Amino acid sequence: MQKKFGLIGIPILLTFLIVVATGNIELLPDLNTETQTISDVQSQIVSEVQPQIAKAEEQSVREYTLIIEQTDIQISDTAIWHAWTYNGTVPAPTLMVNQGDLLRVRVINNHDVTHSFHAHMSDYDPKHDGSPVNVITGIGAGSMIPPGGEWTYEYNVNTWGTTFFHDHAASEGLGIKDHILQGLYGTILIERNPPRPYIDRHIPIVMSEIGHDVERMEKGPTPYYIMNGKGVPGGEKALEEIFAEKGLDGIVAQFNYTLPVYKAKVGETVEFHVTNLGEQIHSFHLHGNKMFSSTNDRGSVITSQTFPLVQGTLESFIIKPDKPAIWLFHCHVVGHADAGMIGLFIVEE
Amino acid sequence: MQKKFGLIGIPILLTFLIVVATGNIELLPDLNTETQTISDVQSQIVSEVQPQIAKAEEQSVREYTLIIEQTDIQISDTAIWHAWTYNGTVPAPTLMVNQGDLLRVRVINNHDVTHSFHAHMSDYDPKHDGSPVNVITGIGAGSMIPPGGEWTYEYNVNTWGTTFFHDHAASEGLGIKDHILQGLYGTILIERNPPRPYIDRHIPIVMSEIGHDVERMEKGPTPYYIMNGKGVPGGEKALEEIFAEKGLDGIVAQFNYTLPVYKAKVGETVEFHVTNLGEQIHSFHLHGNKMFSSTNDRGSVITSQTFPLVQGTLESFIIKPDKPAIWLFHCHVVGHADAGMIGLFIVEE
Amino acid sequence: MQKKFGLIGIPILLTFLIVVATGNIELLPDLNTETQTISDVQSQIVSEVQPQIAKAEEQSVREYTLIIEQTDIQISDTAIWHAWTYNGTVPAPTLMVNQGDLLRVRVINNHDVTHSFHAHMSDYDPKHDGSPVNVITGIGAGSMIPPGGEWTYEYNVNTWGTTFFHDHAASEGLGIKDHILQGLYGTILIERNPPRPYIDRHIPIVMSEIGHDVERMEKGPTPYYIMNGKGVPGGEKALEEIFAEKGLDGIVAQFNYTLPVYKAKVGETVEFHVTNLGEQIHSFHLHGNKMFSSTNDRGSVITSQTFPLVQGTLESFIIKPDKPAIWLFHCHVVGHADAGMIGLFIVEE
Repeated sequence: MQKKFGLIGIPILLTFLIVVATGNIELLPDLNTETQTISDVQSQIVSEVQPQIAKAEEQSVREYTLIIEQTDIQISDTAIWHAWTYNGTVPAPTLMVNQGDLLRVRVINNHDVTHSFHAHMSDYDPKHDGSPVNVITGIGAGSMIPPGGEWTYEYNVNTWGTTFFHDHAASEGLGIKDHILQGLYGTILIERNPPRPYIDRHIPIVMSEIGHDVERMEKGPTPYYIMNGKGVPGGEKALEEIFAEKGLDGIVAQFNYTLPVYKAKVGETVEFHVTNLGEQIHSFHLHGNKMFSSTNDRGSVITSQTFPLVQGTLESFIIKPDKPAIWLFHCHVVGHADAGMIGLFIVEE
Repeated sequence: MQKKFGLIGIPILLTFLIVVATGNIELLPDLNTETQTISDVQSQIVSEVQPQIAKAEEQSVREYTLIIEQTDIQISDTAIWHAWTYNGTVPAPTLMVNQGDLLRVRVINNHDVTHSFHAHMSDYDPKHDGSPVNVITGIGAGSMIPPGGEWTYEYNVNTWGTTFFHDHAASEGLGIKDHILQGLYGTILIERNPPRPYIDRHIPIVMSEIGHDVERMEKGPTPYYIMNGKGVPGGEKALEEIFAEKGLDGIVAQFNYTLPVYKAKVGETVEFHVTNLGEQIHSFHLHGNKMFSSTNDRGSVITSQTFPLVQGTLESFIIKPDKPAIWLFHCHVVGHADAGMIGLFIVEE
Repeated sequence: MQKKFGLIGIPILLTFLIVVATGNIELLPDLNTETQTISDVQSQIVSEVQPQIAKAEEQSVREYTLIIEQTDIQISDTAIWHAWTYNGTVPAPTLMVNQGDLLRVRVINNHDVTHSFHAHMSDYDPKHDGSPVNVITGIGAGSMIPPGGEWTYEYNVNTWGTTFFHDHAASEGLGIKDHILQGLYGTILIERNPPRPYIDRHIPIVMSEIGHDVERMEKGPTPYYIMNGKGVPGGEKALEEIFAEKGLDGIVAQFNYTLPVYKAKVGETVEFHVTNLGEQIHSFHLHGNKMFSSTNDRGSVITSQTFPLVQGTLESFIIKPDKPAIWLFHCHVVGHADAGMIGLFIVEE
């Protein structure tokens, strides 16, 4: 569904992150026909280039390369999103790094307007801010990367948890918000030191709304509210019509095309990381699972299985699914869910 | 003010929940004339049918019966809300259950479109989800209850605290959000095991906006932002006009008709449970009382006596009023309060 | 930029609060030319009249006098805001008080409509509520202060932390929200007992939107989203144009005129207190600093350097900047930042 581009290097050390499930679903007949269709989820997986130790006794360095360019994404049967991407997907590949590392991100701008990479990190030289202040002060001006340019950003990673990055540039007639909505964002997972080996699987989700450059090839609905770049065009009503017409196969054909689907196995410990990088308020509800907050209020149960996601904030939570099931997750601004901001979490034996 | 319907069974064991105060208000002359008018608050009280122990050494079972049907609610002197209700009130009766119990809720659909009961619980068989996924998978399809049908939902209650339930169905031309806004929601209070005997009184409040099926009998303002189904038509300005014209008696006549009023006694420990099941963002401010959070951040003082209520979230807090007073509570999106989203909390000797 | 009015009394004991920085900026050439232009920040400093001990062995009393009147504020080169103010500034001077004190605030209404002072405090006699309930009950009716009147409000200060105050009156055709948006709000900092001597500097910020009474002298953009009464007219694009035309000097000329600028020194412990008293949702992001929450979840790191600010709520956080830098802070509803809701935090050697 998405044009893959520029996944540079070999993902290593991250096998626990592989979200693509291959097991059969015992209790849910017909659904195992779709296991080959959800490779898109792989877009969540990090593109890791060359982790290396610079010198003995020095800080470990984790390096990534991200290439900014326009990527065409089929968002419905009738519409193409001329998205702007880091490495060809919306969101960008998730960056993994360990607490204590130096994170180094080389960003190459192959697009025709200036972009940047602004990470919500807490310890870095101002020249790596990737914001208009770099232009005004002249310190790190190149971190606002002109077309054809590149910048290598560096961060000391001293806090663990989850955070995110996004473009912080604007171009003529467009605001920073428009640059972000066009797809230039992603999640950073910072592993604790010492690590938390009990987490079997990470599921990063970015809630947002679709960018401005959507081309309709023919008449037809397009998604507006999206999670990880996907939303059901025409909303829940359209999904019902698909089901009425084509049955379960029709629904399965939407898996990770318009309907984000993530899988886990019974007994695993799964951590979700949900960020709102849209311009609207959202909230997040996962059906049927006890959710333990793993951000600010580490360990506490999330009240009523729903948490708020004000613009620009994120929340991580851990679940331990104990039975095979297909569970809905969706924005609990219910009108957004009605409009297609829904997904499935499938727990397999 | 509300047409009472279908309160089945005898409320027992819940005397501490009785919100209807009968004492006089010593410091506040004239207000004791309204004690007989606030029986509406009783709509907050649970309708409990037959709590029973299934077998020796087994899990306690708490059972409720809820009947869905249209209920006409007078929301102003000139308008009727053809609401959709569980058991005749908006919100539904509050369900009480103990941590460790099995909660069993029999829901009968006496309305002419499909409805369901979706509880934000964390441990239940997927067949009791009450969502469109039940239809798609064919597992628990009947939990989306057609007109004339019924379903009995079951939940293992292993977390204590507060949560809520609502309809999760849509009908032709209406979204799930419209079904919820029409009144199909309520609060679930889960008592801790061991219990917290120090809580003298619970006050559940659901903030929302009014549903679509409001009939205006004559010209006149109607409420839009509501708490527990009530809002002051014409907003604060109308209330001022009532006061100017009719004095305190005019205000008292609005008690639990358009103006939600709850009471407690000096020295009691009172727990509020406030949920936002509307489509707008709200926040909640109670004047003049130190509020201790009893949800995520248990025990901490709520900063600035106000907390956020993003769509689909809730917060519980505890106060210990120490003097007779009439305190305002209201949405702190101040425009919502101006439009009538206000209530009174009366502390009596 | 702002007409200063009525700063009564001598600020004492609060030298640590002086936000006006006088040091040079070593790393940032040209910026030290603006040190004399940011005296506006002084509007954040408390106006303290006569702290006194009433009697031996009794509660300490902290007293302030606030005068309500219209104040003309130049908000852009082409527009004047006929704001309503406590003591001539938006926000009002920050009130400082110690946990355990009695806070006494004398408010004089020199404006032509009724106003009040409603503080989000948790222990006070209902007669000091400053709300319409005072009128309805007749208890403390004068706390809704008519033109030419005054009221002295008193609060027992038994919780430490940060809170705020605002007008709670409405006038014909205007809601309470309009009264607040016109500028009648401010922050209260309650020092813990025992105090926290490790805080070197407080920076209170109120996010809001501008009030209704803005007069355009000529054609030109005006700010809408504001922090401490300031916003960049024309938004980020206008700032870029200023920079392109006039360079850094052009930007510096906006310091604390349209662009709020706060300073601290390397090694200091700085506490921000950010409140949303607008009608829109906001969130707050400070670039490049590890933020420790000092409100509800004391001590925890704020996830992703951004926190939500639903209408009517606040958050305090502590940072310890360790290098000279100019950092952006802004609303992370990115469209609000694009529209000018941005500021600078300058860390000097």
